Amino acid sequence: MQIYKAPLRDMRFVLHEVFGSADLAKLSSEVDLQPELIDSILEEAGKLAEQVLLPLNASGDEEGCHLENGVVRTPKGFKEAYAKFCAGGWTALACDREYGGQGLPESVNKFVEEMICSANLSFGLYPGLSRGAYLALRHHGADELKKRYLPKLAEGTWSGTMCLTEAHCGTDLGMLRTKAVPRDDGSFAISGNKIFISAGEHDLTENIIHLVLARLPDAPAGSKGISLFLVPKFLPTSDNKPGTRNGVLCTAIEHKMGIKASATCQLTFENATGWLVGAPHRGLAAMFTMMNSERLSVGIQGLAISEAAYQSAVVYARERLQGRSLAGAQHPEKPADPIIVHPDVRRMLLTMRAYAEGCRALGAWVARALDTLEYGKDPALRQQAEDFTALMTPIVKALFTDFGFEAANIGVQIHGGHGYIRDHGVEQYVRDARIAMIYEGTNGIQALDLVGRKLGAHNGRLLRGFFHPIAEFIAAHKTHPKLASMVGALEKALGALQLATATIAEAGLRDAEEAGAAASEYLRLFGLVALGFMWARMAKVALEALPTAHGEAAFYHAKLVTARFYMERILPQAGALYLAIKSGKQAMMAFDEAAF
Amino acid sequence: MQIYKAPLRDMRFVLHEVFGSADLAKLSSEVDLQPELIDSILEEAGKLAEQVLLPLNASGDEEGCHLENGVVRTPKGFKEAYAKFCAGGWTALACDREYGGQGLPESVNKFVEEMICSANLSFGLYPGLSRGAYLALRHHGADELKKRYLPKLAEGTWSGTMCLTEAHCGTDLGMLRTKAVPRDDGSFAISGNKIFISAGEHDLTENIIHLVLARLPDAPAGSKGISLFLVPKFLPTSDNKPGTRNGVLCTAIEHKMGIKASATCQLTFENATGWLVGAPHRGLAAMFTMMNSERLSVGIQGLAISEAAYQSAVVYARERLQGRSLAGAQHPEKPADPIIVHPDVRRMLLTMRAYAEGCRALGAWVARALDTLEYGKDPALRQQAEDFTALMTPIVKALFTDFGFEAANIGVQIHGGHGYIRDHGVEQYVRDARIAMIYEGTNGIQALDLVGRKLGAHNGRLLRGFFHPIAEFIAAHKTHPKLASMVGALEKALGALQLATATIAEAGLRDAEEAGAAASEYLRLFGLVALGFMWARMAKVALEALPTAHGEAAFYHAKLVTARFYMERILPQAGALYLAIKSGKQAMMAFDEAAF
Repeated sequence: MQIYKAPLRDMRFVLHEVFGSADLAKLSSEVDLQPELIDSILEEAGKLAEQVLLPLNASGDEEGCHLENGVVRTPKGFKEAYAKFCAGGWTALACDREYGGQGLPESVNKFVEEMICSANLSFGLYPGLSRGAYLALRHHGADELKKRYLPKLAEGTWSGTMCLTEAHCGTDLGMLRTKAVPRDDGSFAISGNKIFISAGEHDLTENIIHLVLARLPDAPAGSKGISLFLVPKFLPTSDNKPGTRNGVLCTAIEHKMGIKASATCQLTFENATGWLVGAPHRGLAAMFTMMNSERLSVGIQGLAISEAAYQSAVVYARERLQGRSLAGAQHPEKPADPIIVHPDVRRMLLTMRAYAEGCRALGAWVARALDTLEYGKDPALRQQAEDFTALMTPIVKALFTDFGFEAANIGVQIHGGHGYIRDHGVEQYVRDARIAMIYEGTNGIQALDLVGRKLGAHNGRLLRGFFHPIAEFIAAHKTHPKLASMVGALEKALGALQLATATIAEAGLRDAEEAGAAASEYLRLFGLVALGFMWARMAKVALEALPTAHGEAAFYHAKLVTARFYMERILPQAGALYLAIKSGKQAMMAFDEAAF
Repeated sequence: MQIYKAPLRDMRFVLHEVFGSADLAKLSSEVDLQPELIDSILEEAGKLAEQVLLPLNASGDEEGCHLENGVVRTPKGFKEAYAKFCAGGWTALACDREYGGQGLPESVNKFVEEMICSANLSFGLYPGLSRGAYLALRHHGADELKKRYLPKLAEGTWSGTMCLTEAHCGTDLGMLRTKAVPRDDGSFAISGNKIFISAGEHDLTENIIHLVLARLPDAPAGSKGISLFLVPKFLPTSDNKPGTRNGVLCTAIEHKMGIKASATCQLTFENATGWLVGAPHRGLAAMFTMMNSERLSVGIQGLAISEAAYQSAVVYARERLQGRSLAGAQHPEKPADPIIVHPDVRRMLLTMRAYAEGCRALGAWVARALDTLEYGKDPALRQQAEDFTALMTPIVKALFTDFGFEAANIGVQIHGGHGYIRDHGVEQYVRDARIAMIYEGTNGIQALDLVGRKLGAHNGRLLRGFFHPIAEFIAAHKTHPKLASMVGALEKALGALQLATATIAEAGLRDAEEAGAAASEYLRLFGLVALGFMWARMAKVALEALPTAHGEAAFYHAKLVTARFYMERILPQAGALYLAIKSGKQAMMAFDEAAF
């Protein structure tokens, strides 16, 4: 069954105990952000996820979205749930106070996103896209546009989309064909066809605000000739109500493997009225504000599925009686032992748990950097934060979604044949999780971003900002009586990462294909080390908390054992990844294209 | 798109060039089995797969099976395809001549199974289950039963099932409750409920022969009290036509993640007439004849999906124009280069290719051993063959299906967003492949079979029979000018496997949970080494064939580069697996059950 209880205790652990929440009040536009307030916000979000969104997850998958005459109907209950979502202020949570938002930091918002997506990934996409549109408009839009649209996006009565992909171009947006012709009144006439537009048409909001990439008539070829336009479904009236229907139509929705309750639309723009966002021909840069935020959120989706799949698997593993423990019957009074007694089942559960909790900590670290970048006063700290988020964006996106999919599959495996049956609900996690490895830039593209753009940036400054704190932690704890063996494992993995970095830096300088050949394995290696650092830090915090933990000793003990599991069972993959990277491009490039 | 051309050239390579087909004529009841005859059989099977079965794969997934009043309707076209399948003699291919079969060896049959399942896995399950029933009955049935049922199974007009699972027991069959009460006429009255019965009810054949596990009234508790019964859907008349309807009813079919055109049935037996197969209380052993054959066939299903997913991905990677090569435009006349130019795309394609071709070779090696076991004259060789198939069954089942699922997912990844859309057909491979890791014993159960039953059997005799030929090959080729580096990689991996074996043998003797904790990683390590040996042997054959290959140089070159890819990019995982195994059970077992 699909089971989900918001992991509030672990969120508090990460927020307050690992990263500390004392300074969060300074990292938001919310002046009095006390820990208790954060906790109560998370608790409310958890209730919403558990009570409103989770019950619609399986039914939404079964029913899917339907298109009739250009109108998309979301599954039963989604409209009511979305209304509750807006009424609770959740769309406004991380929006600016000046636009009617609550001004909460990403450090809180990302946890809320996680809970929403654990309970109902399809649902989460609707406000998720709006959030991206909000950020792009806020950073690049003219004041007039911001005043008109941001409050509507914040209150959730209008939603947003990002319209990038066309049938012939996804990764390579330089080829896009949608046109924008200037009109005398300062607006533009947008014409073209877009595909794969999440939330492109639906019945949840009274208006939909499309952010559309298109070419101006004088645009240079390629990606330097793309501009960003705001194109509302209904043109706002003077008092900002949805007015005349604009020239944008949903012509089809996709029949997909998963996230079936999320409408994935083909949109046709025909002389639709739009307004330029940001400078002409600089649309890709503006869209990347949105894209980077979305990439982090997609990573959080992966984490969200890991958590949901884990929880369902634990319940099943406790309930399913089958066979006896290898150490002799543990529950002789029952016809068989629950399968949770088996080391191999525990191996699977702990893999999921190590992924979910490790990713949660790493995600919180990145969220903190986002908040520093947004609200921090110290320019040096802001620069550090910018470096760190730039470096971590591809890792969070790709690693978390790879792990989310793997965790969802482990969940099915623990359920055995029952996991393959739709009624049990856990195979949905596999189908839903699968898209996260693809959209907002495939995980292969993330890897190329890491080795191509981030690794060499500013002579390796981004990397040093990441390696230094790990090296310091290792130096400070390598003789610690209880942490030494974990820290030793981390040191070994970091060594592999540093060697791999040197290999790529050297070979990639000669030959860009060498960097391309190493990219995916390098990203995984990088991610494993980053999570290893999180686990080492969490183990330290848990160890220090234990003597005074009283009723919570079990929580901290579980952290310590999971940390050990990660170091012993998962982190050793670092060595194999380094060997693969070291072998270079030849095995791939020597293969004759015609022979495939 | 779902694209499939039977990989006949590679099958001939494995059959004739790697393992040699000269002695196959002695390993079958077909006396004049010349290589040309085998090739023409494979060619015909390929046509059937491409022309008859492939066109029904996506439509069968879309339509699924339907149950009305106990009658299951398979998707449009399946009935006609099955009739062609029988008319072509494919159900009889590997059946004995005395029962109307053609007596071909498994070395040919397994390739045919692969082609069927590449084209249409759901379809393949119907004759696949019949094959298992045929084998169980042939080995354990009384002559009377054999004469009545085997010819019908061979001609395909009647099909078979295996009825093991009940709602509360799958892995742990000792708990099963279905009852068999003896009647005066020598038959038994079978009553109980079974679930997950593939091909349990359908409209392809005029009768269905269920092999059912049930308990006799005097049966001891647990797995030693289970007997096997033959229960036909229609009781045969004296002239062996389907007569009176027996007391077995399909009460529901499952709504599944994939293999939707395969009917997965809940069956209720109510005083159904059955006959004992084999000795009382020895049903599990008899069923394992069927199960072992099925496990190998399920492994072949994994290989089949790897191949199909690979072929579709190659076509897409050649056609999809997106971005430019990192080495500069390769097709400047086109708007972009095909994505096959990118090292990361090639890495993905070669991973799939290395899996498919490596598994095909290993599968053929196991099939040869099955034929030796069945038809060989030399008792020592037969013993070797029995040891080898016993050892390899869990590895073929688990490794091939893990790889099949991974390959299917890589295929989707290469297709990007288009891969997630149902119309493109490649996400079906993911959903279809997923079940193969579960049914006929989950892959975790396979791993326990390997470490628990096979590793220590006869003081390690099974293992020695596997390690020796690899060690000999390494010794003979480690200084070979063109193979040395590949052989070096294989030697390193074999070393890791031997260390892991010693670790488990020692720790597992003290504590069975230690073996359980290592099982899954050990199976993967074992499989990687086995495939590494196949790739080294194939590289050697390719190298020797090259000087006189003329028009086929590209084929052998591709083998050599893929072998190198496997050794450099995949086999190094062996080291990480050994480290995980070495770390022992504590990280799993120290976790408090209540804290999950």
